[in-house]
Amino acid sequence: MRVDPTLTPAAFRERCRNGLHLGPTAGIAPGFVQANLMIVPRDVAFDFLLFCQRNPKPCPLVEVLEAGRTEPSIAPGADIRTDLPGYRVYRDGALVDEPHDVTPLWRDDLVTFLIGCSFSFESALIDAGIPLRHVDQGINVAMYRSAIACNPAGIFHGPMVVSMRPIQAADVARTFEICARFPDVHGAPLHVGDPRALGIVDLASPDYGDAVDIGPGELPVFWACGVTPQAVAQAARLPFCITHAPGRMFVADTRNG
Amino acid sequence: MRVDPTLTPAAFRERCRNGLHLGPTAGIAPGFVQANLMIVPRDVAFDFLLFCQRNPKPCPLVEVLEAGRTEPSIAPGADIRTDLPGYRVYRDGALVDEPHDVTPLWRDDLVTFLIGCSFSFESALIDAGIPLRHVDQGINVAMYRSAIACNPAGIFHGPMVVSMRPIQAADVARTFEICARFPDVHGAPLHVGDPRALGIVDLASPDYGDAVDIGPGELPVFWACGVTPQAVAQAARLPFCITHAPGRMFVADTRNG
Repeated sequence: MRVDPTLTPAAFRERCRNGLHLGPTAGIAPGFVQANLMIVPRDVAFDFLLFCQRNPKPCPLVEVLEAGRTEPSIAPGADIRTDLPGYRVYRDGALVDEPHDVTPLWRDDLVTFLIGCSFSFESALIDAGIPLRHVDQGINVAMYRSAIACNPAGIFHGPMVVSMRPIQAADVARTFEICARFPDVHGAPLHVGDPRALGIVDLASPDYGDAVDIGPGELPVFWACGVTPQAVAQAARLPFCITHAPGRMFVADTRNG
Repeated sequence: MRVDPTLTPAAFRERCRNGLHLGPTAGIAPGFVQANLMIVPRDVAFDFLLFCQRNPKPCPLVEVLEAGRTEPSIAPGADIRTDLPGYRVYRDGALVDEPHDVTPLWRDDLVTFLIGCSFSFESALIDAGIPLRHVDQGINVAMYRSAIACNPAGIFHGPMVVSMRPIQAADVARTFEICARFPDVHGAPLHVGDPRALGIVDLASPDYGDAVDIGPGELPVFWACGVTPQAVAQAARLPFCITHAPGRMFVADTRNG
């Protein structure tokens, strides 16, 4: 699915609200902040906030909304219950629904976390002439549950999810330089070259998103990923949470960097 | 009060535990992390963690201990109830006690926050040949409640506390350069030169700590300060909290930067 790249974040969110965009947000509104979503009940909100504080690479906080609030300060007029292309609902750690509107599930004790997303630096890579295959193909980035354990916090524990982008070997150093400028959105890559070092057996079978080929002269480059809270919700058998659908982010009005 | 500067953090904490050091910690264990302390009951811990997330300049988190825990990972074997030179106990926003041991007040629902401290960069300034008067005089740094409002979070709101160090005008630029390397411990100064711009009427009357003179050719330089939670506890009339006594920090086993 391709979208007019000149669409403003507000116009894009309106398309989502009206059910007109259900696909990934890679390449949408280049230069604007995109965020992963995690919504949890107040009784576990401290534990989850602490989890983010202890795991800043996969879970860099962009904004936390107090219980019951639905309008982020990074996007005035937005509603986090309707303005993403897709959501996931987990109960007792199991995925039970994938709606595109979670208004019917809303409760006043729900606390919303917006977490930085690697899509924020993708436009910087593209601007530097480093192509990204999933953006060129209009598909979702490939994501994997790794063997890296997150630092636990209260009830939250589980594996770190990583995203992978094939990068020409000659571009890897510049990729690090560019991404290191964005420490608030996962920053520099975690690993280059050996998926098995991260416990990933088969790059062709991502746990989330779409597989892409590794071309000649390319290395697989891995970043900490904001889908980590979903793997953690599953590992911790969290009674209830709502997240974004992987690759379908909240697009904010603020600019990167 | 002067202390052997070669004292290890563990040996210093033992002196505190035995009531042998009651003064400020500026100049103690140069190069090691020092931290401000804030202990609150679990029912307001989410709000306070969110307050820190929204106010990273005055409240950069070094470590958060889950409810009931007293041994930080940054200082194995330490006990946050005994290992600081002095504590303050606030009830309903009022200072009610200044003990040097808070074990009798301990409860299993108390959550401990260790917050980065500007003392962490003081040794870098001294190493660069930039003298610090309060260290030379063996007194506490001067701190002021400013007119800058913190970003509120839940029940927490109030003024930012700032610390002030007189710096030779010729050294101010280097001071910024050096402190900017320590973003996790307040980082670069907030302001230089005009106390009234921060709502400070009289530099000779600090709200916390000890006054120092501004010498010829010197400018007052201001940093966000980890005593801010105490001013916030007062402004928000927090029912109960325990903090460090201003200037009397927790000295950790980890090194700065």
